[in-house]
Order: sequence, then C-alpha cells, then structure tokens
Amino acid sequence: MFNIALFGAGRIGQVHAVNIADHNETRLYSVIDPHQEGALTLAAKHGAKVQSCEEAMVDPQIHGVLIASATDTHADLIEHAARAGKTIFCEKPVHLDLARVRDCLATVAACNVPLFVGFNRRFDPQFRRVKTDAQAGCIGKPESLLIISRDPSPPPAEYVRVSGGMFRDMTIHDFDMARFIMGEEPVSVYAQGSNLVDPAIGEAGDIDTAFIVLRYASGAMATIVNSRRSSYGYDQRLELHGSEGLLCAGNILENQVQHYGKQGCTSALPEHFFLQRYKSAYAAEWEHFVAVLRGEAVPDCSGDDGERALYLADKALESLRSQREIVL
Amino acid sequence: MFNIALFGAGRIGQVHAVNIADHNETRLYSVIDPHQEGALTLAAKHGAKVQSCEEAMVDPQIHGVLIASATDTHADLIEHAARAGKTIFCEKPVHLDLARVRDCLATVAACNVPLFVGFNRRFDPQFRRVKTDAQAGCIGKPESLLIISRDPSPPPAEYVRVSGGMFRDMTIHDFDMARFIMGEEPVSVYAQGSNLVDPAIGEAGDIDTAFIVLRYASGAMATIVNSRRSSYGYDQRLELHGSEGLLCAGNILENQVQHYGKQGCTSALPEHFFLQRYKSAYAAEWEHFVAVLRGEAVPDCSGDDGERALYLADKALESLRSQREIVL
Amino acid sequence: MFNIALFGAGRIGQVHAVNIADHNETRLYSVIDPHQEGALTLAAKHGAKVQSCEEAMVDPQIHGVLIASATDTHADLIEHAARAGKTIFCEKPVHLDLARVRDCLATVAACNVPLFVGFNRRFDPQFRRVKTDAQAGCIGKPESLLIISRDPSPPPAEYVRVSGGMFRDMTIHDFDMARFIMGEEPVSVYAQGSNLVDPAIGEAGDIDTAFIVLRYASGAMATIVNSRRSSYGYDQRLELHGSEGLLCAGNILENQVQHYGKQGCTSALPEHFFLQRYKSAYAAEWEHFVAVLRGEAVPDCSGDDGERALYLADKALESLRSQREIVL
Amino acid sequence: MFNIALFGAGRIGQVHAVNIADHNETRLYSVIDPHQEGALTLAAKHGAKVQSCEEAMVDPQIHGVLIASATDTHADLIEHAARAGKTIFCEKPVHLDLARVRDCLATVAACNVPLFVGFNRRFDPQFRRVKTDAQAGCIGKPESLLIISRDPSPPPAEYVRVSGGMFRDMTIHDFDMARFIMGEEPVSVYAQGSNLVDPAIGEAGDIDTAFIVLRYASGAMATIVNSRRSSYGYDQRLELHGSEGLLCAGNILENQVQHYGKQGCTSALPEHFFLQRYKSAYAAEWEHFVAVLRGEAVPDCSGDDGERALYLADKALESLRSQREIVL
Repeated sequence: MFNIALFGAGRIGQVHAVNIADHNETRLYSVIDPHQEGALTLAAKHGAKVQSCEEAMVDPQIHGVLIASATDTHADLIEHAARAGKTIFCEKPVHLDLARVRDCLATVAACNVPLFVGFNRRFDPQFRRVKTDAQAGCIGKPESLLIISRDPSPPPAEYVRVSGGMFRDMTIHDFDMARFIMGEEPVSVYAQGSNLVDPAIGEAGDIDTAFIVLRYASGAMATIVNSRRSSYGYDQRLELHGSEGLLCAGNILENQVQHYGKQGCTSALPEHFFLQRYKSAYAAEWEHFVAVLRGEAVPDCSGDDGERALYLADKALESLRSQREIVL
Repeated sequence: MFNIALFGAGRIGQVHAVNIADHNETRLYSVIDPHQEGALTLAAKHGAKVQSCEEAMVDPQIHGVLIASATDTHADLIEHAARAGKTIFCEKPVHLDLARVRDCLATVAACNVPLFVGFNRRFDPQFRRVKTDAQAGCIGKPESLLIISRDPSPPPAEYVRVSGGMFRDMTIHDFDMARFIMGEEPVSVYAQGSNLVDPAIGEAGDIDTAFIVLRYASGAMATIVNSRRSSYGYDQRLELHGSEGLLCAGNILENQVQHYGKQGCTSALPEHFFLQRYKSAYAAEWEHFVAVLRGEAVPDCSGDDGERALYLADKALESLRSQREIVL
Repeated sequence: MFNIALFGAGRIGQVHAVNIADHNETRLYSVIDPHQEGALTLAAKHGAKVQSCEEAMVDPQIHGVLIASATDTHADLIEHAARAGKTIFCEKPVHLDLARVRDCLATVAACNVPLFVGFNRRFDPQFRRVKTDAQAGCIGKPESLLIISRDPSPPPAEYVRVSGGMFRDMTIHDFDMARFIMGEEPVSVYAQGSNLVDPAIGEAGDIDTAFIVLRYASGAMATIVNSRRSSYGYDQRLELHGSEGLLCAGNILENQVQHYGKQGCTSALPEHFFLQRYKSAYAAEWEHFVAVLRGEAVPDCSGDDGERALYLADKALESLRSQREIVL
Repeated sequence: MFNIALFGAGRIGQVHAVNIADHNETRLYSVIDPHQEGALTLAAKHGAKVQSCEEAMVDPQIHGVLIASATDTHADLIEHAARAGKTIFCEKPVHLDLARVRDCLATVAACNVPLFVGFNRRFDPQFRRVKTDAQAGCIGKPESLLIISRDPSPPPAEYVRVSGGMFRDMTIHDFDMARFIMGEEPVSVYAQGSNLVDPAIGEAGDIDTAFIVLRYASGAMATIVNSRRSSYGYDQRLELHGSEGLLCAGNILENQVQHYGKQGCTSALPEHFFLQRYKSAYAAEWEHFVAVLRGEAVPDCSGDDGERALYLADKALESLRSQREIVL
C-alpha cells in the first residue's frame, strides 16, 4: 500500500482523492492546502490527515506526492518533493515559464526520482485507441491530424490574467495530444487567434478562439481548433487522416437516448466538462502512476513532455504576435 | 454503516461485492457460498468473513442480505432472512414456480421486511430516461413499445435444463422492462418461438429465438424480440412510439472511435455482455437499496414485480404451446 | 421507343408519368382518367394525348399500360389489357377480394401477357441491398426480421371505408417486403391491432396500429410494426438478424446537416412520405418494367406476388378477429 | 424554350448536357468540341447538332452558352460569347491568371451580359442549408468555420502541371465555399502544404495535402483541410461554430444500410466523387441559370466571385512559399 500526500484540495484535487482512495494499492495519507477548511473536509472524507507542506515532505511514511495545487506552486513543490525522494505526480503545467521548467527538471534529474506530468487526455480510451490503431497500421501513414477542443464556457478574466494565456493554459493539452498521436516533434508552428467570446478576456490581453497549424519533418501536419465556449457542452474530438483511411474519435454523449419529433431527431449533448468526460482517463492515469510507484513503469508522460508542450505554446504565441510561421 | 451478508460468490455475486464495498454506507460483512473456496477468495478480497447460512441469519450485526446464489435457493433464503428480520435484496427470480413465489411473498409480508428484487435494467440510465421522458409527455401518449434483447451467446444445455426455459430465465427481464416502461399491466400475451441457435437447447425442450406481443387495456402494445445469440455483442435496445414522437434507447458502444477505410465506416461493437453493459445499473440499484436500508425508500422493484414478470413468462409459454393469444 | 398508356392521373399516376417520360426507351403516349381535367393537364405536361379506356385498349400503337387508377378498377383493367395483348404494369393491389384476384390472374395467364405488380419498396436501394447482402451470406442464416413501417398521418375515414382495411391497404407492402427479404412463405400469422390514432378509423371498422408475427417453416420469424401516424415523418426501416450478424436499413433523412445547441444534437427528419422516400424506387421499378417490355426480363414482382400478399392480409385479419395464430 | 450551346463534351460537359436536356425550359441545341467524335456522340444522345465555335457564336437561335471546355479556353470563350450577346455559364475557373480574369470580366461588363461561374458546391443542399440556418441565427454569431475536402484519388501529374496547382484547381472550391458561408471577405490567409500522396505531384512542383487558415475582419476564422487522396471516398464536410451552437454538414453515404458483425458496425462509404456527390447541386445550379436566362435572377455566383476565389488561391500560394501569413 503506497501512502500518498495530496497537495491541493480543489476541484481537480478532489477527483484525484477519489482515485487514490479507490485504488487498492494506494491510500490517501494526507492533504495539504493553504485553505485549511478545504483540506480538512477532503481529508475527513477519506480518513486522511491534514499536514503542512513541510511535514509531508519529511514524512517517511509518504511514498508519493500528487501536486494539484495552484499552478505557480508546482515547480517549487516538485523540487521540494524531488529532494525528499518522493515519486511525483504533478498536474500540468510544471510552470508557465519555460526557463523555470528547465531548472526544475534539472533538479528532478539530479535527484533521480520519477516525475509524471498529468496530461490526462493521453489516458482517454478514445484517443489512446486512435494512437494504438494508427500504430497498428490501420490507416497507413498518418498525414494530417485535426484536434477540436472547445470548453463549455470561458474562465473568469481574473483567472485568465494568471493563466499564462490560452495557449499555455488550454491549448497546451492539444499540443501534448498532437505530440502523443503523431509521435514526432513539429518543425514549425503557426497560430491565428481572436477574442470573440468575452471582451474581458481581450482586456486581460488574451484570446479565446484559435486555429493552430503544426508541420512535421515528414510533411505531415496537424491543426488545432480551440474555443473557450461551446453552447453544446465540452467538444473533444480528433481525426487522424492517413494514406489508407481515417480514424475519428467522437464526443462521448451523456446518454444514448434519441428523441424523434416534429423538429427532427435529437441526441444527447456531449459530456459537460472534463470531470465527466475524462473520468475514466483520470482513473487510468492513476493506474499508470501506481505502476510507476511499484517501479514497474517509467512515466508515460514526463517532465520533458511538459516542457515540450509549453515550448510549443510559447512559440504559438510568438507566431500569433508576429503573424508568421515560426520554425522550431 | 450497514453490514451486508452476500449469499453467492459467483459472477454476479462478485459484481455486487464490489458495489457493496465501494459504497460509503455499506460494508461487505460476510460471504456465504457452499463452494468454500469461492467464498474465501471473495471474502478475502474485501476484508469480509466467511459464514454459514445459519450463522449469517442469526448474526445481529447483519442489516441486509444480498441473495445471489443458485436460483432454486432464492425463495428459501428469502423466507429465512425475512424471519430473521433482515432487509433483503434478491437477484431475480424469486423462484421459477409461481405458487412457490406466492408462498414466499406471503412470508415476507407477514414478517414485514423490505424485499427488493434485482431487475437491474430498471436502473440502466438509458431505459430510465426513456421512462422519465415519456412520463414528462415528450412523445404524447405511448402507443407501441419495441424491446430488442439478444444475448451474445447461448448458455450451455445443462443450464437451460434447470433455467425454467428462455421466457422465465431471459425474457423475464423484458417482461419486467415492458411493465416498467408502460406502467400498466398487459391484458393479453402471444408468443412465437424457435430453436435456431443450438440444437442442444431444443433437445433440452427449450427455444432460443422468440417474438412476444403484449396488449394493454388502453390499446397500446409491446413487442419483445429475443435471441440467445448475437454475433455483434449484447444487443439491448428499446423504442417507445407515442402519439407525438419516438424515443429510442440505443446500444452503448465499447468506444466512440470510427474507422473509415475502403470497406466503409466501422464503429465499435456494443458492450459485450451484462457485466459491462449494466455496470452503472448495478451501482444505481445498490444506491437505491441503501436508501431502502436507511428506511428512506420502499423497494422500487418488489416481490410483486417479480411475481408479475414470472406470471407473464408462464402465460407466454402457454401461448407458445397452444398457438393462441392468452387473455390475462 | 415503347408507347405507354397511363390509367389514372392522380398523385401516383403523376409520379409514373415523369418516369415514363424521362426514360429514353418509353414515351407517355396517352392518359386515361374519368376525371377529364386531370387527364388533360397531365397529358399536356408530357405531350401525350387523352384517350378513353376503349380507345387505348384497341390502339395498336400502345405497347404497355400502366394502371394507377382507383383500386376497384384494377382487376377489370388488367383483364381488358391482357385480352388486348398489352404488357401490364399495375399498382398494388390487383383487387381487394382474393377470389377476384385469382380469376383475374387466370385471365392474364390465359392471355400469356406479362403482368408486373408495383410493390415499389422491392426497388428501394436500401431494402434491396439488405436482401442482396443477406443472400451473399454476410449475416449467415436469417433468423428474424423486423419491419417498422409508419405513415406520417392517417388517411381520412372515407378512404379507410373503401380501402379494404389497414392490412390490405398498408400492411400489404410489409407482407410483400417480408416475402421479398425472407424468400420463403410463412406457415403461420398472428396479428394484434388497435385503434389509437383516429376514432373515425375505428368507427369505420378499422385499426390504425398493429403488430404482426409471421413464422416460417425454417423456424425463422418476422414481425411487422405498423402505425398510421408518425409525428417525425415516414418511418421505413428494417432489420434482419442472422446467425452471424445483423443488417439494418435505416431511414433516409431529408438532409445531413446536424445542429448542436443547448438542447442536444438535432438531425433532420426522415423523408416525409412515399413520394420522396421511394422516388428512386419508382424510377428503378420503371427501369425493370422497360426490361420486361423489351422481353429481356420477366416481372420481378408478379400477379402471384400480389395474390400472396393479399392472402397474408386476409389471414392476418382473421387472426386479429379470432385472437389466435392462423396456420397457413 | 432556351437553346443552349455546350462547349466541351467531356465528363463535366456530359453532366451538364443531361441537366440541359432534362429541364423543360432548356434544350441542348449544339455541342462544340475540338474532339469531333466526343461532340458527335454527345450531340446524338440528346438530339443536338454539332457546331464549330464560330458557328455557335453567330447563331441567333442560341440563347445561352455553357462553357465546360479545357480551362485555358474559358476566358477566350467567355469574351467571344459576351461580344455575341449570349448569357454565359462557365465552369470554374475563368482563367488561372488573375490579370487575364480581370481583363475578361471587364469585357463581360462592357458587353453587359450575365456571367454565371459554376461553383457547384454553393448549390449543394447540405451546404446551402448550413448557410441558411446560420443566417436565420440558429447558431448565433459565426466564429469559426472548418471545411474538410478530400478527393478520392490524385490526378495524374500531367494534369497537375497544367492545373495551376492545387490551390487554384482544387482549393478554389473551398475558398469559394468559405466566402459563401461566411459572407465576408478574409483579411489574411496562411497556408501550409506537403507532397505526401504522389511523388510525381511533387516533381511537377505541386503539393497534395494542405491546411489553410483565413482570418476575417470580425475576428472570425476559417480553416480548410485538403488532401488529394481519401481511401474512403470523396470527403466533403463542413462545420460552422457560432456563439450559440454548431452546424455540421456531413458526408452523403452511398446507402443507409448498416452491417453489424464480429468486427463492429459498418456503414457505407461517402458518395464516391463529385459526379455522385454533387448530382443534385448540378441540377439546382442549372435551375438557377434558367432563372438568369429568363431575366428573373442575376447570377448567384458571378465573375467577381470567380476572381476573388482565384485571388485567395494566389495569396495562399504566396503564403506557402514565404512561410508567413499574407495580409489581403
């Protein structure tokens, strides 16, 4: 049984707490959150203790840490945990600043501890199947990838201000997905974006709608379609076109009931947001991390993956600002 | 925390054991099975004890029993548990003989304990939504119901011999579903059946393919389409046609990935069998039973429901044999 | 170029007129209709002449007749045309009275002229493909057939009174479809029906909602689901289940545009009624009849097929009235 | 009855010949083609005469000309016909050189004759419905458009050499579609492309796979996904995302039959290529042109539209070569 310290008792921390508690090889040992009430509530729910950061880091009972705290604390906590010899699961991103990410990863490397970066979508059974089927050759040579990713509603402008911008906050998932599916690094990136959803986002210096085009050395290409708003739920699809076919991963609907009436045939909406849509992905991700804890696997999604996705986000922003394709 | 004694450590018992253990108001307290090895394995997995039937019935720590043992033991165990004052969850059917069912239910009534009969499909979110939407009036007045229910593969002939026949063993779920959706009792039943799938089933005196037609006092009708075999997985659908529309509950597919190639567009198969297809139904069913344990609900699906479904199965068999519509 | 005399300038006559005129081997030579104005309008549209029945029958220029007049005139016109040596296309049914049908077919046989009976759905590309695929073995041995056939709205009660009843007027298409797909004659029929749609239909002695079950000597079965009303357009589907798979012919939608919004994903309605849904079937039917005119084919759908479908309708009515399965 | 002279008896000329002949207000009067045999065959089929270009242009019987000849003859024929006062239908493009297009359109304007440029897809019922629904406000304000357009197989390299390149030959349809759907002119264009399908296309200096991003003054954006190859038929889809919903126009399948078997559920392929997919679009296009001939409509798709689509193709090529976004 591995004891896990959870940093962050917020929305995503609560998702992980359930998976930690449900897994028969892990136990939620402690919860750490500057917001004491949240920490107490979550700890009580799972029979865990509340600790301070310092206590957790020196506690020899703790095998692994799960960092689901505020973004700007990730790098510091990773370094702290790495020095304490813990196996680390960190929600994306490592940090919003690429130089800081590199420093942090150097520390992790020096401490020689496993670091898993939580790009949850890699563990979605739909997207994983596309990758597996493509690798098995069922569409020949991949030529173009289309990722459609739209959130149900925009975040508040205050969040946008500290988020690092849409590319580093939202599109970073899609950059990682493109890397995951294509299995090669892009050689150029182009981005086009607009502020169409909420003027407050524009006032905060960000965009909320974007198209990004990636080019690979093989000549293959990928396009990411992003919006901070979708009136019909969380829109999470991808299509991979190859020399011998097409693989499409469609949305997961809330149910399979169809209603036929005078207006036509109406199906259910896609699962509303990431908590619903990626429920099984979060569980599968934890299953993988347990294998890392056991020493039977290395992280499928490492600090290096986190760094590369952030690098693409930075370069996409450079493209958006310069109105040109950026060679990588 | 309610302590639960589980009778039967087989396939379906194992499904229930997980739900009992996962629910934060119930604990798998003990496992009872004449096959000791199975009982020990399942008990060990969930930190439960192994008991004899007698021990469990007199154990004051036990609040509820879940009967998932061999069909011919259900009625005896129900009576035993009723006399012991336990709250009872019994897998369908109560018994294959209608007179025995009635005796058993009389005992339950005399003991005044709650009895829930596990028609799992009533808790499937798809079928439940059809009922809810229809009750909300979104298709006007229901006029005809079509239930398609095909198992992936036939049971062995030895099982068929003790199963009570396809109508009492398999179609009974569809009779209950028709009752659940239509909300009124049929006034006549007609059945047509054949032995097409496995000659051994015919030799055992049973059929494996059937159409059943029910008629209601309102003039509404229902048809059940059954087969013991489906080469494409577990086929579980229904369509309810009303004066102002149609509601269709389709199959749940194993995934949402589509492959386009020279042969066309290929989607995934339906979930393979009941363990996968009705996973969430089993959990919802248990959630309901916990409300019964708490005294906050009466069983949504009672001994009476079990009796009525069996009565329809008996009458369908009478129709099949007499080649006429049977008035109920 | 074959000259065709068209009997009947009504709705279905107009459909055939276009197909006759569009085909490069046939010409609409004349139109015959007791309602002179309709005949003149249709004839003028296609550059045809108006004739009386007697004129047409003796006109040596005419190679073929297409009978799309009132149902009760079909048998007389068939006999008249047969004696005149014309090749005959007659809309279903030959007659509503089985004895009259048999007399009529005896005359046709004596005159040795080809008679094609227009069961248009046999020429629908969807249903034909199901038959072809099944014959090619792609679902193994056919075991059960499900035909869903619902009209968008009920006919007026005056029509119902002279229609011969729903089985002879509407279900007859489905009886023929069952014969077409299964390729064997049923050995029994059972029918259940209700008057749910329009009380005036019940007052006219008819039903408007029905389930029919057919059984075949092979043990295979078929069910027909009928309604005189569908709030969502013309519902025309079938499913053929076999030992190795399932073939489903779904509705043809008015368009392929889907709208996603707050209420879900809405697709178009099925094609509204037979003029739209079976447009290509009517053209294919005519293409086949031209091959008959050329002497290169015998009618795919003969007087015998018309007789057998009517016989099933009669027996279904007998079942409905006697509440029992009728052995054929 | 309008007499039409058809220039070009090739594949697309034959499609138009049928529509001209089938329409009850137009007659295929003559066929003009340097390849005499093709002209004779097509003319004979429709009872038309064969003329030389000069004969047709001076023939006062001819009301309209349909130019479906080789691309490099379009501009000359348009000018010739304009000076002869004919109403003109010309297949896209007017010319591959933008300056030549402008000269040609100046001549047309000076002669004051109607010129319709045949962007057939504007008349596809699916795409038109998306435009109509969007204009009716059913998805709020359009924000991003996605056009997926893949040909079933690449053209031969000899054709590629004279085609003007993929953007001017194939993508030009998508540029026009973007203009049609969005109803505003883009302010910038970016293109990324590769030679992945056939090395001979690369040797001919062209690409066969591309992503294009358009930006509009409103901040809305469009992406075009192109490939010269699709193993699963002609892939012609679009999605328009707006502030209040999404409209998707999917492929038209060859049939609606689904096969369920051990491998999953297989649906039919999309209609194979433009002759099948856009059959109804070609007919609707001709219907519109007849209204132009009648003087009741001005061309929905004019020389100006042809020029603007070509301009976008030119600028996309400039973007591809310079690896930057081109401001328009």
